[in-house]
Amino acid sequence: MKFKIGVFAAILMAPNAFAQDSAMFRKISDEVMMHGTCYNNLRVLCKNVGHRLAGSKAAEKAVVWGEKAMKETGCDKVWLQPVNVPYWKRGKEQLSLTTSGGKTIKLNALSLGNSEGTGGKPMSAKVLMVSGFEELASLPDEQIKGKIVYFNYRFRQDFVFTFQGYGDAVKYRWASPSVAAKRGAKGVIIRSMSTGEDDFPHTGSMHYNDSFAKIPEMAIGNYSADSLEKWCKKGTVTATMQSECHLYEDLRPSYNVIGEIKGSQYPDRIITVGGHLDSWDVGEGAHDDGAGCVQSIEVLRTMKALGIRPKYTIRAVLFMNEENGLKGGSAYADSAKSKNEHHVLAIETDAGGFAPRGIGFEMGEYQVEKIKAYRKLFLDYGVYDFEKDEGGADISPLHKNLNVPAAGLLPESQRYFDYHHTNADVFENVNHRELKLGAVALAQLIYLVSEHELF
Amino acid sequence: MKFKIGVFAAILMAPNAFAQDSAMFRKISDEVMMHGTCYNNLRVLCKNVGHRLAGSKAAEKAVVWGEKAMKETGCDKVWLQPVNVPYWKRGKEQLSLTTSGGKTIKLNALSLGNSEGTGGKPMSAKVLMVSGFEELASLPDEQIKGKIVYFNYRFRQDFVFTFQGYGDAVKYRWASPSVAAKRGAKGVIIRSMSTGEDDFPHTGSMHYNDSFAKIPEMAIGNYSADSLEKWCKKGTVTATMQSECHLYEDLRPSYNVIGEIKGSQYPDRIITVGGHLDSWDVGEGAHDDGAGCVQSIEVLRTMKALGIRPKYTIRAVLFMNEENGLKGGSAYADSAKSKNEHHVLAIETDAGGFAPRGIGFEMGEYQVEKIKAYRKLFLDYGVYDFEKDEGGADISPLHKNLNVPAAGLLPESQRYFDYHHTNADVFENVNHRELKLGAVALAQLIYLVSEHELF
Repeated sequence: MKFKIGVFAAILMAPNAFAQDSAMFRKISDEVMMHGTCYNNLRVLCKNVGHRLAGSKAAEKAVVWGEKAMKETGCDKVWLQPVNVPYWKRGKEQLSLTTSGGKTIKLNALSLGNSEGTGGKPMSAKVLMVSGFEELASLPDEQIKGKIVYFNYRFRQDFVFTFQGYGDAVKYRWASPSVAAKRGAKGVIIRSMSTGEDDFPHTGSMHYNDSFAKIPEMAIGNYSADSLEKWCKKGTVTATMQSECHLYEDLRPSYNVIGEIKGSQYPDRIITVGGHLDSWDVGEGAHDDGAGCVQSIEVLRTMKALGIRPKYTIRAVLFMNEENGLKGGSAYADSAKSKNEHHVLAIETDAGGFAPRGIGFEMGEYQVEKIKAYRKLFLDYGVYDFEKDEGGADISPLHKNLNVPAAGLLPESQRYFDYHHTNADVFENVNHRELKLGAVALAQLIYLVSEHELF
Repeated sequence: MKFKIGVFAAILMAPNAFAQDSAMFRKISDEVMMHGTCYNNLRVLCKNVGHRLAGSKAAEKAVVWGEKAMKETGCDKVWLQPVNVPYWKRGKEQLSLTTSGGKTIKLNALSLGNSEGTGGKPMSAKVLMVSGFEELASLPDEQIKGKIVYFNYRFRQDFVFTFQGYGDAVKYRWASPSVAAKRGAKGVIIRSMSTGEDDFPHTGSMHYNDSFAKIPEMAIGNYSADSLEKWCKKGTVTATMQSECHLYEDLRPSYNVIGEIKGSQYPDRIITVGGHLDSWDVGEGAHDDGAGCVQSIEVLRTMKALGIRPKYTIRAVLFMNEENGLKGGSAYADSAKSKNEHHVLAIETDAGGFAPRGIGFEMGEYQVEKIKAYRKLFLDYGVYDFEKDEGGADISPLHKNLNVPAAGLLPESQRYFDYHHTNADVFENVNHRELKLGAVALAQLIYLVSEHELF
């Protein structure tokens, strides 16, 4: 195939500024695509550290990795910001079923994060399958009491933007144990928050309402969920849950890793770009969120490599404990508040290392318009969507408590919930060019805001 | 994460038509995403047929598969259109190197399609590494004569749209044997046309200039190419090529597979959508172009499932022999000409089963504008780029000889040249949602053109 690239209409700004910005966008892209180190950084994080739940030994190793990788960018300053984090331990776990035909089957299953297990002992009960909260609410207590409730709620594949499907389904992961315990259930099985045509179970955060018993919750993959659905329709199914997981009350010391390039004209104005260093305790935390970490580091490296001296101070932050506590994001905002720092913009990259499609904004419309005036510059890099209202979890304390304008990188979302919180979230499932293009978009955005003093 | 989806400004057309089209776009998307059969069709093609070079037994099996899959859509008519195709056979092949240090290494290598081998006998010669045609041209004949020339030209990773990089590099695959033979070389090794951070060699079409010796050509993957580069810089490297490949002069009978829904108002106006059924003789031809075949079939299935009675006749065509002869595309255009058919639009999908980003056009600007008037309808489905000038190979005879307006589906391009023409082009590397979204965009486009009689 041969292609002629379309010429975009000149955008409505001084032609010189446009040409200069366009040239710098190209330089940034070329630098990352040709010399970027983010892919290799991700390989080291995934293969030498692996998964790294907050409070674990691996998370400590990840902090060491992050500090080293940050220093290698040649940025002006690297430091560790103390954060106290909770620690949840999975331990051993298994889920088996006995069908009405007397067949016993072991299912791939994962306890949900922060949930309590069965104390390591087998716990058996009949399975009550429901399509969702509504069906459960319609049933009398005696049908629920003593049962293991199976929430067979499907991830909606009709939403093109998969985060919508996630937003729709995730309440079952988060709330179903307390909803079921309130009605007397002994345990909960959920269909994973998964777009996957596969059998990977997806872990992730859940939450107990202290008014009800803390019953165990396990997720199963789509194929197992289809089988369980079939068996439940055929007759009585008994499930046996056995798990050791436990959330420890005492917090443990850990760190956010921060690197900084000091602003050449306005060192007190800070732009933060960050992802989270912790991951769930499965897979390698490659897309979630090793990708965001190495992209944030790449922004600093690219600026140094190109000799860009940003007018504003640029900080890359690897947040700790996004997955099951958000302690890192809170600590960062608390520190900013106590030091009376002037944060002009915070950008999060925590939606996977896929090719970027857009940038989301949580800020005033007049602020969004300042960035959208430059939207045509981004088109050649595949970034066209500036319409979604989205920042990110780690920067939400900055946004909510300090009114800092927030933005989020929006990559292609089709594959994210195939990998998210599973054993399939490994380095091999990240494409080097897609990962790098995400870093390109971040560096371009930050360059623009700093160079034109947009905020 | 939670997301609020941005509301697009109303587009400049009658509000009612817009609302109706928008609703139909949604119906098409929901039907494909929830009930689409293209992913399962692709599984069967990849796993039960596998790779299927034109003229091979597997290609015959693929025709049977295609006819069956087409009939399952419930479309009005399915037929096979005879095409005579060439047959190239790979046979056994190997490539080994002896470094200046005396070490002998076997490399993963693939002969290029349509090339002649070494007659099955080992052929050894010293390796002359050059960066490209320019360097070769600068060397005296005596340095080239009797050598195996290694064209170490790198796929340019700085182009964001990878087809640009392919367009830049592919001349080395296509022309280097004759360029080197003209100067007395005995054989050619090329660095694959590959974006991959891996060692997969990529096959693909090459061409001999009849004025020069038909010397063998082999491709090696990026890791092997890096090693060969290193060894050549260190000292003298001897390569031994051994291959049996051969292009048979006599054509063999084969078929294009065609399915059709007859137009309800203008049955004589035809819209063609197609991909190619043949593949290279490695991997499973999943992205190239099983994806395009199953997407084209999905367009017919979706229209039938939704009860859409298109005003125009819609044809899905699985073309034979795109890879090494284009006989199917030519036969289709010849038939259209001889029957005096009225083709209003031809659309090709042959750039991989990745999430769609745009539609390319090879037609008059006034015709492009007719489609672009509806561009905002496509945005919710990730399709935003209507600026590239691109149709496709199989529809090029229709376009060039019969002036039929041509369009091409433009999916995300980042991963295509990791898989293209390799053993990695397998079903597992296609994502079900991305594949389906491509079919959605095709069905939406065809619906629009037919419903509004745009052409």
